[in-house]
Amino acid sequence: VGLRVVLAVGEGDDIAPSLAERAPGMDIVRVREGDSLPDALAEADALVCNRLEPADTRAARRLRLVQATSAGADRVDPAALPPGCALCNAYEHEDAIAEWVLMAVLALTHHLLVYDRGLREGNWSRGLPLERELRRRTIGTLGFGHIGRRVVELARPFGMDAVAVTRSPTPERARAGGLRWLGSLEERDRLFAEADVAVVCVPLTDETHDAVGAAQLGALGADGYLVNVARGAVVQEQPLYEALRDRRIAGAALDVWWKYPETRGAAAAPSAYPFHELDNVVMTPHVSGRSEGTRRGRTAFVVAQLVRLAEGRPLENVLAVGS
Amino acid sequence: VGLRVVLAVGEGDDIAPSLAERAPGMDIVRVREGDSLPDALAEADALVCNRLEPADTRAARRLRLVQATSAGADRVDPAALPPGCALCNAYEHEDAIAEWVLMAVLALTHHLLVYDRGLREGNWSRGLPLERELRRRTIGTLGFGHIGRRVVELARPFGMDAVAVTRSPTPERARAGGLRWLGSLEERDRLFAEADVAVVCVPLTDETHDAVGAAQLGALGADGYLVNVARGAVVQEQPLYEALRDRRIAGAALDVWWKYPETRGAAAAPSAYPFHELDNVVMTPHVSGRSEGTRRGRTAFVVAQLVRLAEGRPLENVLAVGS
Repeated sequence: VGLRVVLAVGEGDDIAPSLAERAPGMDIVRVREGDSLPDALAEADALVCNRLEPADTRAARRLRLVQATSAGADRVDPAALPPGCALCNAYEHEDAIAEWVLMAVLALTHHLLVYDRGLREGNWSRGLPLERELRRRTIGTLGFGHIGRRVVELARPFGMDAVAVTRSPTPERARAGGLRWLGSLEERDRLFAEADVAVVCVPLTDETHDAVGAAQLGALGADGYLVNVARGAVVQEQPLYEALRDRRIAGAALDVWWKYPETRGAAAAPSAYPFHELDNVVMTPHVSGRSEGTRRGRTAFVVAQLVRLAEGRPLENVLAVGS
Repeated sequence: VGLRVVLAVGEGDDIAPSLAERAPGMDIVRVREGDSLPDALAEADALVCNRLEPADTRAARRLRLVQATSAGADRVDPAALPPGCALCNAYEHEDAIAEWVLMAVLALTHHLLVYDRGLREGNWSRGLPLERELRRRTIGTLGFGHIGRRVVELARPFGMDAVAVTRSPTPERARAGGLRWLGSLEERDRLFAEADVAVVCVPLTDETHDAVGAAQLGALGADGYLVNVARGAVVQEQPLYEALRDRRIAGAALDVWWKYPETRGAAAAPSAYPFHELDNVVMTPHVSGRSEGTRRGRTAFVVAQLVRLAEGRPLENVLAVGS
């Protein structure tokens, strides 16, 4: 099948053996820490990676596919795509992330972190305010793709009502998704006003950058919860911190952040603001999509995509094409 | 309507005003800290309480109803019931507890407490084992009453399979509950062998005391999770602690305990064993049923029950009758 496939640092462990088994003719090049990615790409047909800069592809003569191994491919610079080269992403994380969202909402409304921490010190205090159950509350998703749809599927059996906004709303999508209404991104203020729980699950784009700020948090209100599983930069950092600190919203569950460690494994605060001091926040280090199912599903998708490329069939999940 | 109703310490705040509005003819006696319960019961027709001893009713001449304000009425001694007096309980907590169960299962499988604690200290380590999603896992409930049914209703949309054991299994109940099978309490070893998540939600009785021990935990296995929202004494304390410590089961979520504070608000370890040192445990101070909905629902139930008594209609939720 002759294709040369480059697997960037960290991307090979599952894909290499699976690809070797499924498409034995492919020439698989695994890039290790310290190797030159530009050199490896010179004669490559496809690259599997999660970040890419223009300098990386300066010598890439025949690259036709940059396959990201996650859904948010915002660390792959489209300017790095040689002419005609496709950038594709991979999903398969919707079960894991939707589970995380329901977990986080319930952990907030049931005061899990406060009660667990207290009882570990022998404190039986049950003085926290009684919460309503999820029944008859409204969940609103900012974004209604793979994740938003699955979140709504899981939330409705709890008795929740659902609304959403998305780039391309249609009555059919609203009906199929079991929504009370589905609006455009411009209608997000209405979403935050109606939602008791607002879930951010849109891709980060120019249009969604800073899309959640003081106005939206004000509309969410003192009984409202915010969940972010998209990208930190969709939400404005300082207004969110202040709304939480001053209890102008009830709580937030954050898996994505404004600051990430420079090097893997280094210690680093995830924000310029001390979210870690707040007890109405659930915080995790960008793990909501991590699961066996996500890993297995993505490996299978990437391998099938490379086989499609080798066989000249149309690619799936094309986000952009280099020009 | 002439009925004299005694509201025990702590039981009056919601019920008294609601009762006064709904049944203005009733004589409502609120017992305060320091008052004599036996004296108050001498001429009472009904008592609303959560604990009762034989000495309390020694002078009760015409008591016909002891209405507990929770589902587990195991602190009301049936020997305290005068002849012909009914002991009834109240549910309305199934939404809140089933939410807590799903929260706890997801918090365990997504390593919530470990990730949250770590990131608060700037630790981004994601080295914990990848978990499977709930899809295709099996949830097994020990008990299939109000709580078990609601847990299964909420778990199935996640893609879980469900099995249960109960005192009175019938094929109809299995079908209506969406179960793969419904067995008797004697079949609990099969339940623990098949379940990835075992949820204890049976009343504490002679039959269920210590029902979960080393054999059942061994059958649950190293990938299995235990959840207890019933009573601590249904589960054997030392075998559970050791199974968790030695990772012979994957984790546990415990809302009910073997030791409670002697006086309300006092600090006290909930077990003779250091569960608080374990990071594969989610622990809360008997709060899973606490919610606005539970409180509202129970108040409405108790008031309706007292009206039934006043009007001579049959009582609901009768657990025992004094002989």
